[in-house]
Amino acid sequence: MITVVLAHPYPDRSRANRLLARAVDDLPGVAFRSLYDLYPDFAIDADAERAALAASEVVVWQHPVLWYTAPALQKLWFEQVLTPGWAYGPGGDALRGKPCLWVATTGGDGGDYATDGVHGHLFDVFAGVVRQTARFCGMQWLDPLVVHAANRLGDEALRAWGERYRTRLVALGALGEVGHA
Amino acid sequence: MITVVLAHPYPDRSRANRLLARAVDDLPGVAFRSLYDLYPDFAIDADAERAALAASEVVVWQHPVLWYTAPALQKLWFEQVLTPGWAYGPGGDALRGKPCLWVATTGGDGGDYATDGVHGHLFDVFAGVVRQTARFCGMQWLDPLVVHAANRLGDEALRAWGERYRTRLVALGALGEVGHA
Repeated sequence: MITVVLAHPYPDRSRANRLLARAVDDLPGVAFRSLYDLYPDFAIDADAERAALAASEVVVWQHPVLWYTAPALQKLWFEQVLTPGWAYGPGGDALRGKPCLWVATTGGDGGDYATDGVHGHLFDVFAGVVRQTARFCGMQWLDPLVVHAANRLGDEALRAWGERYRTRLVALGALGEVGHA
Repeated sequence: MITVVLAHPYPDRSRANRLLARAVDDLPGVAFRSLYDLYPDFAIDADAERAALAASEVVVWQHPVLWYTAPALQKLWFEQVLTPGWAYGPGGDALRGKPCLWVATTGGDGGDYATDGVHGHLFDVFAGVVRQTARFCGMQWLDPLVVHAANRLGDEALRAWGERYRTRLVALGALGEVGHA
């Protein structure tokens, strides 16, 4: 199974993330966990989240980048689900070796992410927070899918990104012999 | 006024942040907003937060670093309080020019934050997320106070950090002619 942890706090403004999700949600063996739908009150069921991850060969984190990193509920998920003795530390090898794909959308042009841009750094600098979270749990960090200026892309451009996303998940499913749901 | 936005999700494990807070909370003109006490259900009163910031000459963000950045409720505060038209963008100059001091505690040794350390990067790389959040709002980013391995420091070492913290706030109060509460 491939579990996609989707975290968009404003469903009514989620055009890009919705289109991306629709590009892959019919794939066999792909299961979505939409955090803001599951936990609108921020009361995460960490056991259920860990069970889903344990049953998955591949983990996808899909969300918009807000203030340079993951949305608050995704951040809370990191804090409450990725616990010592399970995700890291002695005995914490539940995620070890599992590929992790980050699918991120941003509001800024790629060019805004530069030392002389309004965001002051290359996007890759900010990406370190999510990347190292995965790596600290021993996950295999894959080349992320980063869609810049997502809210300004037309449907056609977003559909092209959706195709890339789909191709990635199909390849991961084939590589990892992902079991069907 | 100096507003200290304090965000510690586990008060019973907050020895370092509690000691640091106690080192400054009797200073005249310093007001604390303890987010996890104010909003245990994550229902932030963004108007109240903005009013406190508007009345402040200096803003302090004090919290432990969890998964390489601010705790989830502090992240939600960034998302819900720092809104366009108020904190950035056209008309969004409420925080422009205000000094921002980051007081961060980490569980790792400073040496763990290295390209060959368990965290893979210098701490300053991860700091970019919080720093750029302040800068995008036009705030004046001050040299942060970062206490590494805070949970392993003795009370005496933490008290020394508390003294440094106090000295910084006293100096900021004097420099900025901070009005007393």
